[in-house]
Amino acid sequence: MAETGLYVGRFQPFHLGHLEAIRHILKKVDFVIIAIGSAQYSHTLENPFTAGERMTMSRLALEEAGIPSNKYSLVPIPDVNIHRLWVAHLTSLTPSFQIVFSKEPLTVTLFREAGFKVEPIPFFNREIYSATEIRKRMLSNEDWSSLVPRSVALFVRRIKGEERLRYLSGSDRT
Amino acid sequence: MAETGLYVGRFQPFHLGHLEAIRHILKKVDFVIIAIGSAQYSHTLENPFTAGERMTMSRLALEEAGIPSNKYSLVPIPDVNIHRLWVAHLTSLTPSFQIVFSKEPLTVTLFREAGFKVEPIPFFNREIYSATEIRKRMLSNEDWSSLVPRSVALFVRRIKGEERLRYLSGSDRT
Amino acid sequence: MAETGLYVGRFQPFHLGHLEAIRHILKKVDFVIIAIGSAQYSHTLENPFTAGERMTMSRLALEEAGIPSNKYSLVPIPDVNIHRLWVAHLTSLTPSFQIVFSKEPLTVTLFREAGFKVEPIPFFNREIYSATEIRKRMLSNEDWSSLVPRSVALFVRRIKGEERLRYLSGSDRT
Amino acid sequence: MAETGLYVGRFQPFHLGHLEAIRHILKKVDFVIIAIGSAQYSHTLENPFTAGERMTMSRLALEEAGIPSNKYSLVPIPDVNIHRLWVAHLTSLTPSFQIVFSKEPLTVTLFREAGFKVEPIPFFNREIYSATEIRKRMLSNEDWSSLVPRSVALFVRRIKGEERLRYLSGSDRT
Amino acid sequence: MAETGLYVGRFQPFHLGHLEAIRHILKKVDFVIIAIGSAQYSHTLENPFTAGERMTMSRLALEEAGIPSNKYSLVPIPDVNIHRLWVAHLTSLTPSFQIVFSKEPLTVTLFREAGFKVEPIPFFNREIYSATEIRKRMLSNEDWSSLVPRSVALFVRRIKGEERLRYLSGSDRT
Amino acid sequence: MAETGLYVGRFQPFHLGHLEAIRHILKKVDFVIIAIGSAQYSHTLENPFTAGERMTMSRLALEEAGIPSNKYSLVPIPDVNIHRLWVAHLTSLTPSFQIVFSKEPLTVTLFREAGFKVEPIPFFNREIYSATEIRKRMLSNEDWSSLVPRSVALFVRRIKGEERLRYLSGSDRT
Repeated sequence: MAETGLYVGRFQPFHLGHLEAIRHILKKVDFVIIAIGSAQYSHTLENPFTAGERMTMSRLALEEAGIPSNKYSLVPIPDVNIHRLWVAHLTSLTPSFQIVFSKEPLTVTLFREAGFKVEPIPFFNREIYSATEIRKRMLSNEDWSSLVPRSVALFVRRIKGEERLRYLSGSDRT
Repeated sequence: MAETGLYVGRFQPFHLGHLEAIRHILKKVDFVIIAIGSAQYSHTLENPFTAGERMTMSRLALEEAGIPSNKYSLVPIPDVNIHRLWVAHLTSLTPSFQIVFSKEPLTVTLFREAGFKVEPIPFFNREIYSATEIRKRMLSNEDWSSLVPRSVALFVRRIKGEERLRYLSGSDRT
Repeated sequence: MAETGLYVGRFQPFHLGHLEAIRHILKKVDFVIIAIGSAQYSHTLENPFTAGERMTMSRLALEEAGIPSNKYSLVPIPDVNIHRLWVAHLTSLTPSFQIVFSKEPLTVTLFREAGFKVEPIPFFNREIYSATEIRKRMLSNEDWSSLVPRSVALFVRRIKGEERLRYLSGSDRT
Repeated sequence: MAETGLYVGRFQPFHLGHLEAIRHILKKVDFVIIAIGSAQYSHTLENPFTAGERMTMSRLALEEAGIPSNKYSLVPIPDVNIHRLWVAHLTSLTPSFQIVFSKEPLTVTLFREAGFKVEPIPFFNREIYSATEIRKRMLSNEDWSSLVPRSVALFVRRIKGEERLRYLSGSDRT
Repeated sequence: MAETGLYVGRFQPFHLGHLEAIRHILKKVDFVIIAIGSAQYSHTLENPFTAGERMTMSRLALEEAGIPSNKYSLVPIPDVNIHRLWVAHLTSLTPSFQIVFSKEPLTVTLFREAGFKVEPIPFFNREIYSATEIRKRMLSNEDWSSLVPRSVALFVRRIKGEERLRYLSGSDRT
Repeated sequence: MAETGLYVGRFQPFHLGHLEAIRHILKKVDFVIIAIGSAQYSHTLENPFTAGERMTMSRLALEEAGIPSNKYSLVPIPDVNIHRLWVAHLTSLTPSFQIVFSKEPLTVTLFREAGFKVEPIPFFNREIYSATEIRKRMLSNEDWSSLVPRSVALFVRRIKGEERLRYLSGSDRT
């Protein structure tokens, strides 16, 4: 029978590790809801891109990877900051799902306490396929584009994402 | 050149008028962002369904109508209740778009004042293809399923949507 | 085995109908959590009293009725206005409970959809033992004190509750 | 000794009644803080103008009336919707004051309960010098400009305030 | 004449220092309102337990200590994060009180500026009777149960509090 | 033609560097809107003063400097914490302006992305004319009053600002 999975990330930016995770999930379930977390935040060093920009990146990357658009749904999920409300908040904003794919302790804890089935996802060379690493490289002008799908690198350049991040790094309001 | 349109609705529930509007928009643009407004609300007489349920309905209806999933993106948009922030809020949560399709005066006013191109959409027999009419019929046990795509009628039945609405109509907290 | 019940009200003000409901519940369970809803609101015609004033009223009434303080817990619960979050919100603020006692459709719907056991409570002469009726009588200077426990009537007088309500009735900001 | 007064209004729009009230207050105190309430709202039939537009209107009107700018301070105050927090909220956003000038019951109640000195202000022909009346006339295309200072009428025209209001009156989202 | 005191804590978890403070306060006043602060937070390293869990712990501890339930009231108080609103917020949610017992500088400052009588409470071996110390020991698997009442230790074990904390310590979303 | 500038600061407290910036701006434009940012915060080490206190300080300083009150408007602007909404939020609360004067990277980024003209302001001996430096000196009892206008020093003393800051520095809730 058809099953739906949930995958939560911030995608700041979408990288090859995310892509591998989604490929992995689509071997286990028929459809995956990709929740773009912390959706309201942008223009900070931790969250440089808007949820809309992250939706575009993710869609471009999945298209480039040949994953058909009828296999997933991208849903921006604003943080609620009150952890006990987060599962109810997320489930009210997404189609229903049966399995949560995550290794992130808070996500795992909250979904388990709410009675959901949670499955780990293998990490794919986590030290380098990491958004933190990518943002660090963007700031220090090192190669980061090899860590993301080609279409994502092009999109980040088109919206001048690197410049935004570097400029913000001088901010005392971030 | 490829253009993206925006279409905003509450889809409480998704009906044949919405479907005609989307068909109309996809004749004018290549891709449409379908914003599911008032996303945080549910379980009231005005907003019986959650955003997640409305995403499911909309996807089912568009699939049934043969509109391919690479032509649209469904995005839940919570209300902010401060009208002057609404355009900035919505645009931060969606991929970028060039034309807003709307006949709703507040939506039109806010997007026009923000400098967007706004185009009207023809109404398709608005007196009956109306979510208000459908909810009224659900409450009074009249035929409503002829006003929505078949897959939507089945989905509403599966989640016991009519019962929820009728039961809530006795509430003094709605 | 010991069971805990939940009883939700706004207690604007606490009246004899509430008292009968609590007596009824304490025949079924060993302990009752009395949730004071819409806790953040006060100084309106619908919600004249603060949550703190309502806690005091309720405690005085239960004391006067001889219900020992180790049989109940009074907990102010602010509204969240997003119905799908309400059960998670309430359960995070209260000790755990097994049965919800309510006849209010929204409360019943939300707790049932969340998988809770819900039991109706009989109404005790609801036409007159009603907070709406009491506030109406306060405004029109009719007898209302016969509808509330004696200690509640005294407390409302001590804090000049009637004057507050009457004065506010002239407000265009309520 | 120098005393400061507080005057609270929504100024949707600023009219001749407001001007008379301010003139009256400046006979009693040396300086008046003019709080522009419901500051976050705009683009509705009740609150068509932004707080910024209302600051501009008020300043123009006071300038036209020859009231020097060192006699008053205009401060936008967003609503908090929780009445018991309103006095603390307002006083945190304004310079300190000694007397509240108001006839509005909720304002009077809240400031009195917080221990402030409250003085009534006479109404100046309230049936016609009323923002509700003015907005009604704007909608029905009757003369409204005689009810506001000349500079306010010009400003409303310059920002196309009438058109905004009329257009919004067709809205089902207001 | 009967006086009521206020005691504010986060009780993450309730420990023997809290118990001594409450005993001390009940020598000075007839009744104490125990405000459970930061009520909305849980599932973080600083705030692992929900307000409801903390109410249960506190009640069990006071019962175990033989303090009768008619001597205190437990009230969850969500943070407002805007310090100038905090006193108004807290007083709207609690029965009235005459003395604030606190040594915490912000609490003392805010209540004093609002005109309340504030009395210090002696600390009871603060280096070890400290919730920070207890959470540290929970994480490092050292003895912590000697620092809390026996009933609290049992309750924390029953809800698997230690496991929750340890699991969350691996989280990058805390 | 007359132009209006925007100048944003937190003014914790207002110092001589702020004064020089405003003098500089008033050589370029006819009128300056002085936005008092993070308006809701106070009683922390970073934000010791309320927005109202900061309005008073700023007005006193500008008066002392002989800058006439018809050249500027002081407007408290609460933070929204969602950066993409900040420009829309600020512009809804202020009269309209044409040029933003700022060197702060986040402010510059957000206004530029929104299409505003942004001009840098020279810093005036930023190492010492800095609110951070002043608060540090207040805490360590060093001379700070030479860094602020005389009227600001007197006002801070009158409201016992130094004591508040020092007392709060012992707080574990800041």
